[in-house]
Amino acid sequence: MPHTPGRPLHLRIALDAEIAIGPGKADLLEGIRETGSIAAAGRAMQMSYKRAWSLVEAMNSAFREPVVETARGGNARGGATLTATGDAVLAAYRRMTKAAEDAVAPEVETLKSMLSTVPGSDEQRD
Amino acid sequence: MPHTPGRPLHLRIALDAEIAIGPGKADLLEGIRETGSIAAAGRAMQMSYKRAWSLVEAMNSAFREPVVETARGGNARGGATLTATGDAVLAAYRRMTKAAEDAVAPEVETLKSMLSTVPGSDEQRD
Repeated sequence: MPHTPGRPLHLRIALDAEIAIGPGKADLLEGIRETGSIAAAGRAMQMSYKRAWSLVEAMNSAFREPVVETARGGNARGGATLTATGDAVLAAYRRMTKAAEDAVAPEVETLKSMLSTVPGSDEQRD
Repeated sequence: MPHTPGRPLHLRIALDAEIAIGPGKADLLEGIRETGSIAAAGRAMQMSYKRAWSLVEAMNSAFREPVVETARGGNARGGATLTATGDAVLAAYRRMTKAAEDAVAPEVETLKSMLSTVPGSDEQRD
């Protein structure tokens, strides 16, 4: 099963029946904060502008206050900033990931100790 | 973003570069334990037999001991049982999910309190 190297834990949480937050939305928020652009943030994740915009729209509708504001109000391709709510959502997601990582660490070590070890021939694992 | 109703937390953990465990593999193991069949377990998840078998094979190769044993040793369509290792992996995954849920609960409550509330018109959330 493909997974992002270097990111051992992948966490997605449904906040209600309509909205979930996971690594995709969190990374997008972070990218928007860094680049000031929905398009640039999406591009850096190999995500279409349409997809990036739809994730932002989903979050903006779900939360009482928008998470991202665009300079021209509409779906302008430049000039996007995280709001205080966006900052708070992103920070909460990062804290949740860290808390979950810490919570599962002992079980992860146990599972790792049960893996077969085939030194120098990882491809036999496929 | 689609997510399984009634299962608020979706957790996937990479154990090394080759193998990750998430809800798909865990539910498959549970289904095999319940039905005694890889095919039946996959079907219950709307998963093709090929896909179910490939997930079992990936786990069987990754762990020192197989997680599932089939009656005829090969990819027989009936007679599959969880091994002690399979039981242990499934139990560890369920414990990790519970531990992660507990760990993120306070942040989840904070995020939920930030959601817009549109009583009786959830469709406005989309």
